[in-house]
Amino acid sequence: MKQVSVIGAGSWGTALAVLLANNGHQVTIWSHDPHEVEMLSTKREQQEKLPGVKLPDNVSVLSDMEASLTGKDVVVMAVPSPVVRSVAKQMAPYISDGQVIVNVAKGIEDGTYMTLSAIIEEEIPNAEVCVLSGPSHAEEVGRGIPTTVVVGSKKQKIAEMLQDVFMNQVFRVYTNPDIIGIELGGALKNVIALAAGTTDGLGYGDNTKAALMTRGIAELTRLGVALGGKPETFSGLTGIGDLIVTCTSVHSRNRKAGYLIGKGMTADEAMKEVKMVVEGVYSAKAALGLARKYNVSVPIVEAVNKVLFEGADPKEEVSSLLLRERRKEHNNLKWEE
Amino acid sequence: MKQVSVIGAGSWGTALAVLLANNGHQVTIWSHDPHEVEMLSTKREQQEKLPGVKLPDNVSVLSDMEASLTGKDVVVMAVPSPVVRSVAKQMAPYISDGQVIVNVAKGIEDGTYMTLSAIIEEEIPNAEVCVLSGPSHAEEVGRGIPTTVVVGSKKQKIAEMLQDVFMNQVFRVYTNPDIIGIELGGALKNVIALAAGTTDGLGYGDNTKAALMTRGIAELTRLGVALGGKPETFSGLTGIGDLIVTCTSVHSRNRKAGYLIGKGMTADEAMKEVKMVVEGVYSAKAALGLARKYNVSVPIVEAVNKVLFEGADPKEEVSSLLLRERRKEHNNLKWEE
Repeated sequence: MKQVSVIGAGSWGTALAVLLANNGHQVTIWSHDPHEVEMLSTKREQQEKLPGVKLPDNVSVLSDMEASLTGKDVVVMAVPSPVVRSVAKQMAPYISDGQVIVNVAKGIEDGTYMTLSAIIEEEIPNAEVCVLSGPSHAEEVGRGIPTTVVVGSKKQKIAEMLQDVFMNQVFRVYTNPDIIGIELGGALKNVIALAAGTTDGLGYGDNTKAALMTRGIAELTRLGVALGGKPETFSGLTGIGDLIVTCTSVHSRNRKAGYLIGKGMTADEAMKEVKMVVEGVYSAKAALGLARKYNVSVPIVEAVNKVLFEGADPKEEVSSLLLRERRKEHNNLKWEE
Repeated sequence: MKQVSVIGAGSWGTALAVLLANNGHQVTIWSHDPHEVEMLSTKREQQEKLPGVKLPDNVSVLSDMEASLTGKDVVVMAVPSPVVRSVAKQMAPYISDGQVIVNVAKGIEDGTYMTLSAIIEEEIPNAEVCVLSGPSHAEEVGRGIPTTVVVGSKKQKIAEMLQDVFMNQVFRVYTNPDIIGIELGGALKNVIALAAGTTDGLGYGDNTKAALMTRGIAELTRLGVALGGKPETFSGLTGIGDLIVTCTSVHSRNRKAGYLIGKGMTADEAMKEVKMVVEGVYSAKAALGLARKYNVSVPIVEAVNKVLFEGADPKEEVSSLLLRERRKEHNNLKWEE
């Protein structure tokens, strides 16, 4: 049994707190929001973001950061990507040397283009920062639907410790040392999911979306490898797997925001309608900045940025993506004659 | 303008005949079935398999094989995989040297483990056999939904000629010399789609299906490369793209048959319910035979075979696929310590 702290009580933080408690660990869940602390303490349920999933008895709800972190074997960080830096700053005074922090949010910081684990390492240099990612909608994990994820750590022993902490009969955990590849797959797929949702909103079919997703996978692999990720990681659970679930699932906020944009809403209107943080909107700008810095061709990311921030017409962007000049599928393959 | 013959008047043959006619070509469509010939001639619509899509005036309906093939620039072969050999035998006497045949069916022959283009080449050695494949549900192509596909030919000039014949504003055609890779992707994904449909039928969620699809892509790439396909082809439209559309679309017969099996039907009952040919049932056995011959590990293909032909319980097979011993995601990646 481990002492586990979950920082952040949104849908994913709550689902993981429930899973970890059911695995037999002693779990605390922290929220900055007095309303959330009150709701979780008295109703024992995140009624707004993960309705129907009860907190087991071995989950305590806390609003005090020091009490949440002190003496914990594992700290799970489950806050929205735009506040990862500010929450890490708050956590820093209470983290002991080598304490394990597992980041489960996905995103790239606007301006710095840093991944979330890099931000946490910068703010809390004495922590051992790891990640957990994969095709894992919180709503389904909360309901015990079979799910597979990947834990990333530079150190094999720590990855295997985390594998033991999280794994159970319906939650399968793989290990992978490629933290940057895992994080980039998780962040960049949200941008592709926005585009895929937009094709749905425009009334296009499965053929169109599959074509966009296939090109999206190629695009995020190209960019991710240029930034130091491993190609294997992008063809695994945290790359293709997460892209598939995000682009096709009814639960995905990024897909839904894209859908609403395809139906004619602006990016701001769509984010208000979805209510939760749409990570892909933040990651889109960062992905474009990174692609320009590393000189990688990312036509889908460019189109998403044009639609989100320059008022471009989504229908025209999809057309220009799909209907360019005639070409070969892969330039390196040889013809017999 | 080309003279084009379409052999087979099912949903895909009809959708392609309509597309080619709308591209300005002179098109004939052949069926062996007097009822289909009658329906297409008088109603100008394949009312059973592609309802709502009218044949343009420049499509003639034929029942005579010789008249269908003589003098045609391009012959599109769109018959179900189990009858490709018998129809090719019928066609052989009327095919001239170097006449271009484009096979658009997907499958592997039971017993011989041959791809469909290899069967056609064996039966009609003087033909120039090409393929067309990709994420392209006939129902959506018939309605003019934006779609991308790949034409495969050993000869670049012929691939480019076919690209010109098929391509239009909503039907984007890439070229690729890797015929075997294109065909294996198209055939093997049907087996994975059966498995994905089964997880849906069992009531599992998007997380489960995405995990299965990610492992399915890896599995079909391993097998396809062992058989001589190129890895690039499996990560392209005819590999990942076609797998995505088949596993997630409401139109897919293979997914639907798997869904019914997950709900408790036998393979025979599911095929009767779906009414059309479920290619994946035929390809599953062939895929397993090929994997054994080439010594490739294919756990999903094995599980599908057990469920289809040995009465294994689908729920137990999914559990044993997803919940094996704890392991690394990729064995070749290095840890810092």
